[in-house]
Amino acid sequence: MRRASLASVCLAAAGAAFAIGPSDREKPPTTTQVMESAKPEDWRRPDPANTLYMELSGGRVIIELAPRFAPQHVTNIKQLVAEKFFDGLGVVRVQDNFVAQWGDADKTRPTESALRKLPDENAFAFSKGLPFVKLPDVDGYARETGWIDGFPVGVERKPSGQAWMTHCYGVVGVGREDWPDTGSGAELYVVIGQAPRQLDRNIVTVGRVLRGIELLSSLPRGTGGGLGMYEKPEQRAPIKSIRLAVDVPDAERTAIEVLRTDTPLFARYVESRRNRRDSWYIVPAGHTEVCSINIPVRDVPAR
Amino acid sequence: MRRASLASVCLAAAGAAFAIGPSDREKPPTTTQVMESAKPEDWRRPDPANTLYMELSGGRVIIELAPRFAPQHVTNIKQLVAEKFFDGLGVVRVQDNFVAQWGDADKTRPTESALRKLPDENAFAFSKGLPFVKLPDVDGYARETGWIDGFPVGVERKPSGQAWMTHCYGVVGVGREDWPDTGSGAELYVVIGQAPRQLDRNIVTVGRVLRGIELLSSLPRGTGGGLGMYEKPEQRAPIKSIRLAVDVPDAERTAIEVLRTDTPLFARYVESRRNRRDSWYIVPAGHTEVCSINIPVRDVPAR
Repeated sequence: MRRASLASVCLAAAGAAFAIGPSDREKPPTTTQVMESAKPEDWRRPDPANTLYMELSGGRVIIELAPRFAPQHVTNIKQLVAEKFFDGLGVVRVQDNFVAQWGDADKTRPTESALRKLPDENAFAFSKGLPFVKLPDVDGYARETGWIDGFPVGVERKPSGQAWMTHCYGVVGVGREDWPDTGSGAELYVVIGQAPRQLDRNIVTVGRVLRGIELLSSLPRGTGGGLGMYEKPEQRAPIKSIRLAVDVPDAERTAIEVLRTDTPLFARYVESRRNRRDSWYIVPAGHTEVCSINIPVRDVPAR
Repeated sequence: MRRASLASVCLAAAGAAFAIGPSDREKPPTTTQVMESAKPEDWRRPDPANTLYMELSGGRVIIELAPRFAPQHVTNIKQLVAEKFFDGLGVVRVQDNFVAQWGDADKTRPTESALRKLPDENAFAFSKGLPFVKLPDVDGYARETGWIDGFPVGVERKPSGQAWMTHCYGVVGVGREDWPDTGSGAELYVVIGQAPRQLDRNIVTVGRVLRGIELLSSLPRGTGGGLGMYEKPEQRAPIKSIRLAVDVPDAERTAIEVLRTDTPLFARYVESRRNRRDSWYIVPAGHTEVCSINIPVRDVPAR
């Protein structure tokens, strides 16, 4: 039997280095116990200037944008949103165990922003100053994995010196044609299945769904082209609107908090997921993956 | 940039050993090219004596049972099915990015088969004679991974000498309470999200959905208990019936074939997934995982 190793999670954030993990002498905490010990400062509120609200008939999907990862694409998506580009378009594709995709599939809105040619932002330069929180577990796709700004990342310090968002469940990317610079953000997709890590560094990622992904993942699967395309326009789930949270009146915003990834508490949370201590488990896995760590999101607590 | 390694896939099936992979001099085939080269003998027809048809209002879910993995559980599930135990019950739980679960959640049918105590069949003895097809890619959860009888497996030759089904998308397992021997098969679940590999060797797996998983993965998510339970019985998707294919008249069976996993063709298929050669891809991943390989299923071709 593969023994659970009580590997500590190493954090290297803001220049400081921690090494946190339960010693063999203590009884390690369960996930519930870790989360109960979280303090207000272990949570963060996503920046409303980088948060999208996509309004579907079933409710609101909240997406956090990642400007550090793909600055020009994020800027262009904000421009499209400011122009109300997505309003009245729909979810055009739902492929089981892969992605849901929305936007202007029929190219009915050939606006300047929709047609803009952008550089290939599939990855960005990694530098030591980045707030990289490393997950020590081995990963077959990337030399290192972890989180930057709360987003899951792969890192290769040498030779490329690159970092990129890993295609985990809920990650949002920019649909494109065969050529890397053919995606403007007028079509977006979200991962709704087993992490398609083969897409890493092949397509531009711009953010992550924080809440409401079930409104997309539970849509009927399309049957077109072996790609989950809806074959009839009336099958598409209509998008009422996409807005930047900062442009929505305070009273209509959703007040949520996301667990920070650059804290000792998060390191304990990861350890509790690597080795489940709940009474249900017989054999702790002793391993986890960047795409198996769901980052908790909650309503802002009442004061 | 992480270079794609043209790692060959090693097959060790039925005593024979192959080493297959494109040489650096050839242009490696795309997945489409590999599949076009498949011969009739690269496909197999699932045994109707080990195939379940679950009839939902939306259609048929086809599940292949894995008697080698959990013989007593599979036998008991067949017994439950023979007694029409599941007919009129429903899907009781759909938790986003985790599982859909069905069966007698309310314990309204305390039959002998439903209450049967079975041994803990979370894993089984690995021996060299098993038709194990090894995936050479590193896996963080298991010493080795690959396929046995077409099902995804983890293997640990030493010290435990065990093999077990890995919790990939579509894998079906036996719901249980806190104790390992509390699952009879009266409640079953299927993975509908990122492979929850932490469940490996913690819960009994009995098979895999071959077709129709979208009928389960696209159901509305439940909101109960943080576990995706449907809070009202009327939310449950009704199960018209579950039958063994062999008990269904020929004319009502679904004639499908599954790609064999113990062939040179399958090794080429895996290689084409490890390093995508389609023109869309910029950077081949050079890596794959047992849960990222979807095993093709098709209608039996007309003669």
